Amino acid sequence: MTASLRGLRRQALRIFQAALKAADPYEAVLRHVHLDVKPYRNIFVIGAGKATAQMARAIERLLPGRITEGEINVKDGHTARLRRIRINECGHPVPDARGVGGARRIAQIASHAGPDDLVICLISGGASALLPLPAPPMTLAVKQKTTRLLLHCGASIHEVNCVRKHISRIKGGQLARLAYPATLATLILSDVIGDDLDVIGSGPTVADRSSIADARAILDKYGIRTKLPLEETPKPGDKIFEKTRNVVVGSNALAVNAAALEARRLGFHTLVLSTSVVGEAREVARVHAAIAREIQASRRPVPRPGCVVSGGETTVTVRGKGFGGRNQEFALAAAIDIAGLRDAVIFSGGTDGTDGPTDAAGAIADGTTLARAQNLGLDAATFLRNNDSYHFFEATGDLIKTGPTGTNVADIQLILLK
Amino acid sequence: MTASLRGLRRQALRIFQAALKAADPYEAVLRHVHLDVKPYRNIFVIGAGKATAQMARAIERLLPGRITEGEINVKDGHTARLRRIRINECGHPVPDARGVGGARRIAQIASHAGPDDLVICLISGGASALLPLPAPPMTLAVKQKTTRLLLHCGASIHEVNCVRKHISRIKGGQLARLAYPATLATLILSDVIGDDLDVIGSGPTVADRSSIADARAILDKYGIRTKLPLEETPKPGDKIFEKTRNVVVGSNALAVNAAALEARRLGFHTLVLSTSVVGEAREVARVHAAIAREIQASRRPVPRPGCVVSGGETTVTVRGKGFGGRNQEFALAAAIDIAGLRDAVIFSGGTDGTDGPTDAAGAIADGTTLARAQNLGLDAATFLRNNDSYHFFEATGDLIKTGPTGTNVADIQLILLK
Repeated sequence: MTASLRGLRRQALRIFQAALKAADPYEAVLRHVHLDVKPYRNIFVIGAGKATAQMARAIERLLPGRITEGEINVKDGHTARLRRIRINECGHPVPDARGVGGARRIAQIASHAGPDDLVICLISGGASALLPLPAPPMTLAVKQKTTRLLLHCGASIHEVNCVRKHISRIKGGQLARLAYPATLATLILSDVIGDDLDVIGSGPTVADRSSIADARAILDKYGIRTKLPLEETPKPGDKIFEKTRNVVVGSNALAVNAAALEARRLGFHTLVLSTSVVGEAREVARVHAAIAREIQASRRPVPRPGCVVSGGETTVTVRGKGFGGRNQEFALAAAIDIAGLRDAVIFSGGTDGTDGPTDAAGAIADGTTLARAQNLGLDAATFLRNNDSYHFFEATGDLIKTGPTGTNVADIQLILLK
Repeated sequence: MTASLRGLRRQALRIFQAALKAADPYEAVLRHVHLDVKPYRNIFVIGAGKATAQMARAIERLLPGRITEGEINVKDGHTARLRRIRINECGHPVPDARGVGGARRIAQIASHAGPDDLVICLISGGASALLPLPAPPMTLAVKQKTTRLLLHCGASIHEVNCVRKHISRIKGGQLARLAYPATLATLILSDVIGDDLDVIGSGPTVADRSSIADARAILDKYGIRTKLPLEETPKPGDKIFEKTRNVVVGSNALAVNAAALEARRLGFHTLVLSTSVVGEAREVARVHAAIAREIQASRRPVPRPGCVVSGGETTVTVRGKGFGGRNQEFALAAAIDIAGLRDAVIFSGGTDGTDGPTDAAGAIADGTTLARAQNLGLDAATFLRNNDSYHFFEATGDLIKTGPTGTNVADIQLILLK
């Protein structure tokens, strides 16, 4: 490997690090929150999600001595040292009684807040399961059964979400209704591609476009009978949303922006392709490889030195018995298609630092990857066929390991050409 | 459908038409050939390929009364009215005796040309099968059997091509050796992604990097025994190539350029993504849809009104029993992913006008396609699962039919946002 290629690989990792930093929950809150809290009597902090403890730590740093009370629900083990805000460790992905207890206290804090108070609500990935508040006489068990039944019947995720919002007391904007007439600021670390606010954590502080009638129609469609009363959710235009603000502090798009900024700083002509890339990892990778070849052949879509950044979340249809993750499989398929390309790197990494079931965040491929593998007697196509990207890149030394990052804003893909 | 969306769809078709015009064999030769023929005593025209009759017609128009003699091999039915240049209709894709007879006369014309003569060689898709000249004692039957055996053994297309060049008297630069010391100008209409000159028609006028030893090693590798002598091909640096020039007059890249130019003329901010897009059609389509969504969400990678052009040739893994082609399947998968997107169009079309086994060149999808299909009671996902894109778009009225175009430079994909 030439020194110039080694440099290019290092730059790819620097760009990925910049994306990770932008997605870090603690950093993201510090960067985005500039609150003038003087007008407020009390400040309450509530929330739920895997990254919420770190977000709460940032809030405590920003507002020392100003927080009246706070409580958040996090996944077991996803804690932090907080001074004022209580942490409940709860079950995830299956909600449990600890989650319900915490959600009830969180709802109480919101409803006790007065017109001169500020409620800061922290939402990150996992919030939906971590904020279970079934509307009585509905119970957690019945609620879960209903969701399971719907999924088994082939209901779409949108249909499931619609029903979910109407059998909860907190989802679909209902937490905002509880907080009213206090001022409500929701800080969101989004793990949803496209940052659809009413989807992230089932949108507890976002106006809901669906109604009880929609939820009933879906239940009828799949022949699910329930005599339980459904809850109506607050709709767009409701006055409660005049005192509500939802701010995305971290997301795939913001991570991609940070990556693009770092790439430009490093001197690359930089293009953002998309922040909602989905599809079969190995095929999406081929399109990225085709772009890399084009940059080399015709300096399109960017001149050289060029960088193309994309984000999103691909999927893998497992057919083999190997070990790997979507990002490593992406890099492996790309390696095959850019074999021999000079000074070209393609990288794919998950911002949570854990690609699939592996201990790697992703992998880095370049024009020499295939030749290096051949020297080791490894056939890339065979490894790809067997979904065995981890063992391929373990052997070539191209796994990227960051350790768990404590955040999740999906994946980042990079194409770099010197 | 709004008037504005209708306009956008019309513009997509205009852009595709511009690509087709650039790929038209007759137009392509007229546009690229500016020969000063005064220095030459005789001008000979030879060649082979499906589009070569139209290329020859352009040469006759450019050089009226100047052509001494000419002969080309074309596929049955792919003829044109020529004055001076003889046309042999031959078997394709299986070479036949008519092809061998024509190839022999073509080789004779080349070898009779003198140092003051110009030989114009026309090459287009299908040239390899249409220019069979087995090196005696090799026969056409033995040659074909060897190729078939290699393919059955799992030899790569590069390995097959290497052997092919060394059991022929015309491939792998040998036609250039025959024409030497005449000046040789080869005009190429490329149907090969990436325009690898020594791959197009097995590179009859292009220096060959492979040797007899390589060909023997491949035959040994697959256990194919032959006592037949192999032919050595001329190598890069050989003096014969000092009098040889290969010019690509039509290709996917040139068609993509023409499409981009037309898009800019129509006022679109235009980006060329790649001219070597390959992969599973429905997955490649999802990446294109993700780019369309990004343009709408953040005006990246191009501002609006925006156009992204890409070219290449996707593939379809057939799992269903429907009817369609790779371009129609691309458009169907895209339609699903851009459902609801305002003033957005995604188009995919084959430049030969015949997508798969259908009578359509491709199809056009927009943000309303899915809703229009639903109104007709059609479920796009079901049609996609069944590889039944033709019947889907036939029902929605979104098939694009150009009729056979007489050319083939692979496919064109367009993303348009107003």
